[in-house]
Amino acid sequence: MSELANKQCEACRPGAPLVTQAQIDELMPQLPEWQIIEVDGINHLTRIYKCKNFLDAMAFAEQIAQKAEQENHHPSLLVEWGKLTVTWWTHKINGLHESDFIMAARTDALYSDR
Amino acid sequence: MSELANKQCEACRPGAPLVTQAQIDELMPQLPEWQIIEVDGINHLTRIYKCKNFLDAMAFAEQIAQKAEQENHHPSLLVEWGKLTVTWWTHKINGLHESDFIMAARTDALYSDR
Repeated sequence: MSELANKQCEACRPGAPLVTQAQIDELMPQLPEWQIIEVDGINHLTRIYKCKNFLDAMAFAEQIAQKAEQENHHPSLLVEWGKLTVTWWTHKINGLHESDFIMAARTDALYSDR
Repeated sequence: MSELANKQCEACRPGAPLVTQAQIDELMPQLPEWQIIEVDGINHLTRIYKCKNFLDAMAFAEQIAQKAEQENHHPSLLVEWGKLTVTWWTHKINGLHESDFIMAARTDALYSDR
């Protein structure tokens, strides 16, 4: 696992700090396959993973769901035939927290280990 | 299960007929919670289901995935905390086939039986 994936996630809480642009500039090179997209004015971190078929995408989603549950921090998971789109953001602060980047790195690590 | 849910799904194949407006007018009243939305010029049939939490949404997605695999006809499933968005359409004909409405009715039946 990458250094980022090994960092501790902070608990989500209202008032937790959004990542700064300086942090984003430091974090994004560690997540080369991820993109920041704005949805309804809220930044989200998203990546599409290729999978073998529908059930394989579903199985990967299930793995991510278990990790998310452990951290009590949940992404959106879009399961389609042959691909899974994973999107992280922090509802409670309407944007991106460092934990979202940590979870993205852990999702990459799960994918690499499949 | 409803009458619609009990109909046979036809195999997806290129050249299969899109539903006509007359069919849509007949089918939609049997699927009151579903909406037809256009994405990139392609009609899709979509519904949001309320779930208890993230893992409950995941578990319902898993049930639908098993049914989809049996029919070899796959939706997109958007898993989020407390809700699951299910979207049916037929890739091979770039739109809606009667089978999509049948699968929507079966998805409703799965939800009712939970």
